[in-house]
Amino acid sequence: MTYRIEKDSLGTVEVPEHAYYGAQTARAVANFPISGLRPHPSLVWATVLIKKCAARANMATGRLDENIGRAIIRAADELLAGELSDQFVVDPFQAGAGTSHNMNANEVLANRAAELLGGARGSYDLVHPNDHVNMAQSTNDVFPTAMRLACLKQVERLGPCLENLAAALRQKGLEFDTILKSGRTHLQDAVPIRLGQEFAAWAKAVDGNLAGIRRAMPDLQELGIGGTAVGTGMNAEAAYIDHIVAGLAAETGFKLSRGKDLVERMQNMDPFVSLSSSLKGLAVTLARIANDLRLLASGPRTGLDEITLPPVQPGSSIMPGKVNPVMAEMTDMVAFQVIGADSTVTLAAQAGQLELNVMMPVIAFNLLFAMEILANAINKLTESCITGITAHADKCRHYLEDSLGLATVLAPYIGYMAAAEVAKESVASGRSIAEVALAKGILSEARLAEILEPMPLTSPGVPGATKESK
Amino acid sequence: MTYRIEKDSLGTVEVPEHAYYGAQTARAVANFPISGLRPHPSLVWATVLIKKCAARANMATGRLDENIGRAIIRAADELLAGELSDQFVVDPFQAGAGTSHNMNANEVLANRAAELLGGARGSYDLVHPNDHVNMAQSTNDVFPTAMRLACLKQVERLGPCLENLAAALRQKGLEFDTILKSGRTHLQDAVPIRLGQEFAAWAKAVDGNLAGIRRAMPDLQELGIGGTAVGTGMNAEAAYIDHIVAGLAAETGFKLSRGKDLVERMQNMDPFVSLSSSLKGLAVTLARIANDLRLLASGPRTGLDEITLPPVQPGSSIMPGKVNPVMAEMTDMVAFQVIGADSTVTLAAQAGQLELNVMMPVIAFNLLFAMEILANAINKLTESCITGITAHADKCRHYLEDSLGLATVLAPYIGYMAAAEVAKESVASGRSIAEVALAKGILSEARLAEILEPMPLTSPGVPGATKESK
Amino acid sequence: MTYRIEKDSLGTVEVPEHAYYGAQTARAVANFPISGLRPHPSLVWATVLIKKCAARANMATGRLDENIGRAIIRAADELLAGELSDQFVVDPFQAGAGTSHNMNANEVLANRAAELLGGARGSYDLVHPNDHVNMAQSTNDVFPTAMRLACLKQVERLGPCLENLAAALRQKGLEFDTILKSGRTHLQDAVPIRLGQEFAAWAKAVDGNLAGIRRAMPDLQELGIGGTAVGTGMNAEAAYIDHIVAGLAAETGFKLSRGKDLVERMQNMDPFVSLSSSLKGLAVTLARIANDLRLLASGPRTGLDEITLPPVQPGSSIMPGKVNPVMAEMTDMVAFQVIGADSTVTLAAQAGQLELNVMMPVIAFNLLFAMEILANAINKLTESCITGITAHADKCRHYLEDSLGLATVLAPYIGYMAAAEVAKESVASGRSIAEVALAKGILSEARLAEILEPMPLTSPGVPGATKESK
Amino acid sequence: MTYRIEKDSLGTVEVPEHAYYGAQTARAVANFPISGLRPHPSLVWATVLIKKCAARANMATGRLDENIGRAIIRAADELLAGELSDQFVVDPFQAGAGTSHNMNANEVLANRAAELLGGARGSYDLVHPNDHVNMAQSTNDVFPTAMRLACLKQVERLGPCLENLAAALRQKGLEFDTILKSGRTHLQDAVPIRLGQEFAAWAKAVDGNLAGIRRAMPDLQELGIGGTAVGTGMNAEAAYIDHIVAGLAAETGFKLSRGKDLVERMQNMDPFVSLSSSLKGLAVTLARIANDLRLLASGPRTGLDEITLPPVQPGSSIMPGKVNPVMAEMTDMVAFQVIGADSTVTLAAQAGQLELNVMMPVIAFNLLFAMEILANAINKLTESCITGITAHADKCRHYLEDSLGLATVLAPYIGYMAAAEVAKESVASGRSIAEVALAKGILSEARLAEILEPMPLTSPGVPGATKESK
Repeated sequence: MTYRIEKDSLGTVEVPEHAYYGAQTARAVANFPISGLRPHPSLVWATVLIKKCAARANMATGRLDENIGRAIIRAADELLAGELSDQFVVDPFQAGAGTSHNMNANEVLANRAAELLGGARGSYDLVHPNDHVNMAQSTNDVFPTAMRLACLKQVERLGPCLENLAAALRQKGLEFDTILKSGRTHLQDAVPIRLGQEFAAWAKAVDGNLAGIRRAMPDLQELGIGGTAVGTGMNAEAAYIDHIVAGLAAETGFKLSRGKDLVERMQNMDPFVSLSSSLKGLAVTLARIANDLRLLASGPRTGLDEITLPPVQPGSSIMPGKVNPVMAEMTDMVAFQVIGADSTVTLAAQAGQLELNVMMPVIAFNLLFAMEILANAINKLTESCITGITAHADKCRHYLEDSLGLATVLAPYIGYMAAAEVAKESVASGRSIAEVALAKGILSEARLAEILEPMPLTSPGVPGATKESK
Repeated sequence: MTYRIEKDSLGTVEVPEHAYYGAQTARAVANFPISGLRPHPSLVWATVLIKKCAARANMATGRLDENIGRAIIRAADELLAGELSDQFVVDPFQAGAGTSHNMNANEVLANRAAELLGGARGSYDLVHPNDHVNMAQSTNDVFPTAMRLACLKQVERLGPCLENLAAALRQKGLEFDTILKSGRTHLQDAVPIRLGQEFAAWAKAVDGNLAGIRRAMPDLQELGIGGTAVGTGMNAEAAYIDHIVAGLAAETGFKLSRGKDLVERMQNMDPFVSLSSSLKGLAVTLARIANDLRLLASGPRTGLDEITLPPVQPGSSIMPGKVNPVMAEMTDMVAFQVIGADSTVTLAAQAGQLELNVMMPVIAFNLLFAMEILANAINKLTESCITGITAHADKCRHYLEDSLGLATVLAPYIGYMAAAEVAKESVASGRSIAEVALAKGILSEARLAEILEPMPLTSPGVPGATKESK
Repeated sequence: MTYRIEKDSLGTVEVPEHAYYGAQTARAVANFPISGLRPHPSLVWATVLIKKCAARANMATGRLDENIGRAIIRAADELLAGELSDQFVVDPFQAGAGTSHNMNANEVLANRAAELLGGARGSYDLVHPNDHVNMAQSTNDVFPTAMRLACLKQVERLGPCLENLAAALRQKGLEFDTILKSGRTHLQDAVPIRLGQEFAAWAKAVDGNLAGIRRAMPDLQELGIGGTAVGTGMNAEAAYIDHIVAGLAAETGFKLSRGKDLVERMQNMDPFVSLSSSLKGLAVTLARIANDLRLLASGPRTGLDEITLPPVQPGSSIMPGKVNPVMAEMTDMVAFQVIGADSTVTLAAQAGQLELNVMMPVIAFNLLFAMEILANAINKLTESCITGITAHADKCRHYLEDSLGLATVLAPYIGYMAAAEVAKESVASGRSIAEVALAKGILSEARLAEILEPMPLTSPGVPGATKESK
Repeated sequence: MTYRIEKDSLGTVEVPEHAYYGAQTARAVANFPISGLRPHPSLVWATVLIKKCAARANMATGRLDENIGRAIIRAADELLAGELSDQFVVDPFQAGAGTSHNMNANEVLANRAAELLGGARGSYDLVHPNDHVNMAQSTNDVFPTAMRLACLKQVERLGPCLENLAAALRQKGLEFDTILKSGRTHLQDAVPIRLGQEFAAWAKAVDGNLAGIRRAMPDLQELGIGGTAVGTGMNAEAAYIDHIVAGLAAETGFKLSRGKDLVERMQNMDPFVSLSSSLKGLAVTLARIANDLRLLASGPRTGLDEITLPPVQPGSSIMPGKVNPVMAEMTDMVAFQVIGADSTVTLAAQAGQLELNVMMPVIAFNLLFAMEILANAINKLTESCITGITAHADKCRHYLEDSLGLATVLAPYIGYMAAAEVAKESVASGRSIAEVALAKGILSEARLAEILEPMPLTSPGVPGATKESK
């Protein structure tokens, strides 16, 4: 590769000849060969959008030359349209606070804007990364603002995925609403439930997690942009701040507002901790659903076998004919990754010191990665697993009738201790609760049939009570 | 000790003669000699309250005999007034789902109610733990409901603690509002800030955490009581459910409502995960504030020494005269405990299976312990540390004037690169930014004084710009 | 209560009249009303032992008056025999580094020693907490050394518990060695395994965790005592250091050695992180075993029902006759607590700064609590669950014969794809693999019987291959 | 793109025409569009190596045709030389247990081997992925064995990185061995220490972590290969097992052995939990060192400024001349990522069920990613930060003389309480401890100079004691 020589405040640097980025990005590439990963597209999008709106705001306050400003905006628009995305080359594990990421954006935009004005890459006479592109900004307010916008964009994507998942579960809830089965608590025989009730409960749990994620949004919508280096706003005019916040709101369609305390907005990572926590909460629910699906679909011969998950690939390299619950398993692994990401976010958030939390890049990386894999996993789980689940009504009904949990139905009539005796005899003899109760003459066959009628057992009320109020 | 013999569905059990608890509690004591701890008082309070309201609801539906019901209510009132609190003897690490805890309450109330009716302890003819005290209930709906109520009670206690902390920080923010100092980012010299701004930002962060905790409350207020064993409500009349929810709301003053999906309410621990997450978020903020206080108060001779924390005890067993920031350190340790508790809660929540999460007791233990130590720690931090902090204005002012961060003030006038040269010369020569700028003739002394006037440096605007809009 | 007035370097303090502790402990009690808990007995034991050995070492170097030294030793011996244990009253959430805990020990010993010499409590003329009891020591070397000793003592207790658990599992492995069943992978039918092999594998896993815990011991045995305030050893003679280390080794029977780098020994919490990690590893294994037991014992009618766990208490307040796997559930909860404790330890360990990690008390609290509940839980799991497990050989055998996993046996003879066809037909028809293979004429009945002979299916080799080498 | 049609046990699949992988890989690509990431090269290396050694072992037992076997080995050798690495296309978040990864390797090798034998891609008549490449194997023994080998390879890389870091720290320890400074405990003035002692202590801590990582190796070296589907070894001859283990040992140079209990080797993830824990321990140490470096290098004007870290890039987009401790900050972020990864590994490990832990892929992903970023970060930290650190001896000496910690030197002579008075007066007056002691006439100037001679204050002994034994 051939290089051009650039100069920054520390000296000279070799930059690949055709690169749109410049000296500081090149230093960062050399300094941080850590993970080999690149920034999430939504973080690049958000950073470039901030640069565009900053240029417009600085033009509005009269501080930025119109020609330069227009060139920066045009360059930004090109990037927002997907151009030059290969020029964002800094590892997520980089300089504290994301200075390298911010300078990467500043340099690419400065070089492209200069080019649009007839200049050459690497010569910052026409458009300067710090003085023009970064005008009235600091990494310290740009980066957390970019994190906020990128997170909001990813939440926007995640929302419909969760709505679809909940809808699919709810649909199965309706489909399976008359399939009677035995409940299980402590993995032991319990009283009856309908398979549809289980799916409906999962749907409601997913609703709850989506609501939880959305509760984290308002705090992300309050921006710290304009706080510059330490949150006080030095070098950023008040008018600029109002202008850029309005600009970002208009461009994104998000309900953005100017931070009430820009010092706090900069140093306090709690809005990200809250978002991460809500993702962790979602992960817990997903893992739970995935685990229950795996359990209910276990077998077919040696497990519970109440449902069948749609096969999507052969399950084993050695066991022919095996089909595994791979979508549920993948979901579990994604969930565990997200929970681990939350640990990292927590550690990074508590490591803030004084005016700044320099650990922001690792927070951004984990949040955006978590939302990326969650959205993708949820989509696949929904479309390739949930929607295709079939139920085995006979098997379910058999469990219901066989379950020791039916002794519970007798308790209001004969008391807990006597009902426990029936259960014990059922275990000892291998006969069903109904059979034992009948044999012991506890209730007449007709009355027994009345109170063991299964459907009423799955909603509130004392089974068989005549004046049952619902 | 002498014992009486009781009988349960598994056989006979020795129970201490004078105990109000019975066979199942005695079994639990023998089965779970794990931590030596006992239930948090708020969990006992909540459980007993549920029993009281259940008795009343069961009387209202006509299912529970009035005499028995009144005796149970009277016994419950005694317990709520603090009697017999030594009879709650089951370890937090116990039977899944908290069956032992629920039976402990059932037995104590049954025995005390029987006594009130003239019966003897250990004879359940008059009042039966399962058939009467636990009527229309299951551990599976009682325990999570008790967790909800206990958590809400602890949140009620935590709220004012946090308001006081925020108020104390805000008060210090006002007191220190004119103390000018240097900001620090990456722990390196940055642009000026006021000490009061730092305290105000912490106050706002604490506000945010309190809001976060309160966002977790609505989901705790929606109760699953009435779902009984698997959430379907078998053996609980619909009228009973409405009655007990209304009763609990009236007794507690909380905004309680009947769960929209009782199956979901029982198995889904997300409301507790959310609460735990919000406590974790608070812990992160507390750790951050504590760490910053320790940093700003470091020294006095070998550290930053910007503030002094009130001494509350000698600091060292070997170093005479040492005074340590013990309140901040204790706060850090509490914060770490709470973050670890959140890990435990997360693990327990994802381990739910089908109709029930049997890991509830460890969730309850960690949440209630976390809120207990948080409230106590916050109170001590506020009263014995924050309110007594004093500031060293001269030291702060000296840092401001000496900071390399002042080079930032020059950038809008001479550009980033030229300003960097000034900073480099300042480092090399040991002179201040102002001195170097003057020596280099960059700006006149008068103009320099104008743009370096410190107070304006701490709010938005380009320092020294004449047409500054605020 | 009546009080005496004591004086310390910060002023006067009220101390309960009859307390053996003094001013600094009283301050700590007032400063830290956080959890209401007291120090783990092993931490008190270790601290007092250090004081005893320090006194002896200081007498040996001639620095401590013999009368005073002997009085301190006598007082320490009383405490080691269990006297005055109620005098250790400082909350685990206390002053950084455990200064309050160390001073509590210094004060109790000083007062008791003075009393033995004819003095009065609260008058430190005869024996001084800092100058005599704490001679040549700092909290900063005493506390981590006490943590090491306390941890080693708890590991000593935990070892036999784990050996018993492994032995019980291994014993069951032998008992169940001929019970043939179907393996399950992905919770789906797999090839045969013997129930005894499962128990034996758990035993080996437990062995591995015990080995892991023991790998953490050498680093705990290398003591930092003698490093005093910052690890350099100021105010501790070299001879004293050798003497106290030898003394502690003799008193405890542990293989203790003098730290190679006392600075490192003081600030580096990695030995505790390693121990905590090994406990976390054990917790993972315990949770896994507990979960598998719960799964295999699920039912009895609606689950796998391969084994029965011994009933130890009725399982439900509402469902008569229900028996739950409570020992396994309790074990899970203990495991989750230990994993959360590891998070706290990790956070605390990374928060060390420069010469000291002030977060030591929360590390000590979590490690000792974790080992306490682990030992107790393991004992109960072993004696009240594992040793009483019974197996259902017929059920197991039925699963084996019915499992789709048997198709694997055919693959070496007819290839993976053809064997998959057999499995598919088995699923479609509901017939067993053997039946389908026979019906399709794939192999003769005799040959089929030969290669499906179950016992050989559970050890290495191609089933039915004549020249099988074992 | 054009496609060929392949058939597997579930039906037909479109496979990119020129792909070396086949139907099941194509299914996995469609099923798991989750993270966009691909397997770590070391995992591919390990899997292919297993396939090679398996082919050789199967030829040795006479089960695999020599022509086919040789073709597989030749194909494997090509892959091991780096060919076709773009054919490993399955996302880390995939089918449970890594079936898709294993089949990807089986298919690529089968197709390439077939090609070498004159066949066409996609036609498995000559070489079959399951029957030949996967002969005597299951994903369930191949994948954990591949994880072990990949981890060992990464540990092999990590070792020298850590040795270099420790050496660099030790070298700085020597270089700074005469730089006297004040220690700091609780971030407060403490007794003297030498800067070199601090670096030496960090070196020893790093040594300890490397030892910890190596303690995790033996358990990784004991392989479960040969256990096949459930660990019993069905379809794998005993001779094959010995042969493949020996082959892997020879190819890798690792001290590999055959698992003592193949059932345990397959289901028990503890060896990976141990490795992950040891990486977490390393992360804690790295974070601590990084944080201390950032603290000691804080300033230059508003911080401690004891050392200067070599500048590697400009520090701020807005503050000219700022240089930040970016290598230390990057190290912190890597450390937090590794700690979060350990959470994920822990969750995944506890989620194993019965014969298998299907969460292996997410364990592998996190371990290999953690070791990758650790090795890279440590290399950069060493070469671009540690080796270039310079110290400010004058500043350090100033702190020493000014520190209140010097009062400790007086305590053996005048007692703790009197020394505390000196410290208090020093605070009140602003004079040094030496000045106050002199003014108060506590000791003669000569004696004071003797006992305050700084160098002896940094090693064991009572300063100024004449008969000091070292």
